Amino acid sequence: MRELIEEVFVRTLGETAPLYLSDASALPATSATLMVTTDGFTVEPIEFPGGDLGALAVHGSVNDLAVAGAEAKWLTLAAIIEEGFEISQLRRIVASFATAASQVGVRVIAGDTKVVPRGRGGGLYFVVSGIGVRRRESLELARIKVGDALLVSGPVGDHGIAVMLAREEFGMRGDVRSDSAPVLDLCRALWPLVGLRFVRDPTRGGVATVANEICRGTGLGLRLQEAALPVRPTTESVCEMLGYDPLYLACEGRALAVVAPDQATEALRRWRTLAAGCDASIIGCVQAGSARVTLETALGGERVLDELFDDPLPRIC
Amino acid sequence: MRELIEEVFVRTLGETAPLYLSDASALPATSATLMVTTDGFTVEPIEFPGGDLGALAVHGSVNDLAVAGAEAKWLTLAAIIEEGFEISQLRRIVASFATAASQVGVRVIAGDTKVVPRGRGGGLYFVVSGIGVRRRESLELARIKVGDALLVSGPVGDHGIAVMLAREEFGMRGDVRSDSAPVLDLCRALWPLVGLRFVRDPTRGGVATVANEICRGTGLGLRLQEAALPVRPTTESVCEMLGYDPLYLACEGRALAVVAPDQATEALRRWRTLAAGCDASIIGCVQAGSARVTLETALGGERVLDELFDDPLPRIC
Repeated sequence: MRELIEEVFVRTLGETAPLYLSDASALPATSATLMVTTDGFTVEPIEFPGGDLGALAVHGSVNDLAVAGAEAKWLTLAAIIEEGFEISQLRRIVASFATAASQVGVRVIAGDTKVVPRGRGGGLYFVVSGIGVRRRESLELARIKVGDALLVSGPVGDHGIAVMLAREEFGMRGDVRSDSAPVLDLCRALWPLVGLRFVRDPTRGGVATVANEICRGTGLGLRLQEAALPVRPTTESVCEMLGYDPLYLACEGRALAVVAPDQATEALRRWRTLAAGCDASIIGCVQAGSARVTLETALGGERVLDELFDDPLPRIC
Repeated sequence: MRELIEEVFVRTLGETAPLYLSDASALPATSATLMVTTDGFTVEPIEFPGGDLGALAVHGSVNDLAVAGAEAKWLTLAAIIEEGFEISQLRRIVASFATAASQVGVRVIAGDTKVVPRGRGGGLYFVVSGIGVRRRESLELARIKVGDALLVSGPVGDHGIAVMLAREEFGMRGDVRSDSAPVLDLCRALWPLVGLRFVRDPTRGGVATVANEICRGTGLGLRLQEAALPVRPTTESVCEMLGYDPLYLACEGRALAVVAPDQATEALRRWRTLAAGCDASIIGCVQAGSARVTLETALGGERVLDELFDDPLPRIC
């Protein structure tokens, strides 16, 4: 076990994880407010076009902090490894975790490894806690007002479709790549705007789920324009064939932002200057009336986007 | 899923977890140095005499911080639940987690729940990260010197034997209870001693594994007295029947401390005034020569305690 940890985790994580072996590590002193998050990652398959469990675990944790207004600084990594899992694949996933961590500039300060018997695990699960420094305060549902605009940073549903196709359950193949990526730069770009109310990354359950969260939390309605929603053509055609709605599919590198009406255009401009936000779009607005999400369809019709009752894709992240 | 989280986790954790639902929570400001740890808990069975996965997860995390000189303040809790796991048992385990957390005065500041398909989990796994405030500095292997004493806070091996008996693999039953408990008060009692060098909790691999860690890390030897080692009679007889060595069995509520010779008696006195330390004992001393652990047996013989190569009890914690 010590050998596994030293050979695979410590060596592969390298300078990203100087303190991995310690049972407890000290954080450098800071006067800033720290924010904390935790997430389990159980995606199946463990590697898929555009990403893998390692990068996804970093992005998911960094993004949870980013949408809350914080820059991730330190991560912990707990691995639950099923007996018989290939060491070479483990090494690839840990290397991908290290690369993603180093790209965002975060350090791994604590780690743990548990091996569970065959049939009692899913190959490899990661649980990551993230600690970040708060850079922007008061991003909360309570600040959302009637007339606010809802922006999305890029095409939705790619992660959900990429993972689903990688499972080959439907006998389909396609070249959809996961959008797995940090949204930190997207968030940073909007933090200076006083009209920024609320940010969320539409992971499990997609845009529709975040939209419902907004309605539930504010008591206000949300009206979305289907025609304004960016969806890649390949993702759209897979959705059409299988009856999925891209609005409910997980993204792992997109952000949704609610912005005061007078700063919506400026927010959009800021996102579009970034590569990660070049397809950003204003997709809806907050309205008075009943607390539900209404979609104005491309054909001019209207339907209510309910909360997801049945999760169509387990182990999506 | 939201219902599961709200009904089971939020309601059961109660005031222990005011921020459980948030994706990211802010830590209260502090000028103290913070320490961070992370651990996966995969114990099988999930409930056993003297403890369960919930309490164990709290104790394990609090103890990792305590032996490093820190008081746990905040925990994160990520649950990986296998489809079909009984909600009533889940509720019991979460309630036990909440009770243990509240007894130590720690708050749960972030949580996550993933459900994995049947056959891809172990019923219930918890991963906990702990954040604590450092109260005692410079507890490190490098400070250990020849002549230092090694103390243990109580009888060893009970957790390992309790879990093993609970599995009923050997057709044996017995009334050994796990020692699962926080060691924070034991650590606090020694923090004022300048002669305190190093503290560790002998979990997986037991006392012998920590002893080997000390030798490896210092280049010094350790001589243990078998006669001085506290072992409960029931644990000892199960060990004799099955050929286990209590020195290699996991404890989950014991501490080992290395103390300068002139403060060893005072350290022992301090531990013995606590209920958790009433059976504390000085079990060995650091010596020059080869970096290995030698056991002076009760009969006056001598044997080397090697590192554990094969883990006799998987999923022990």
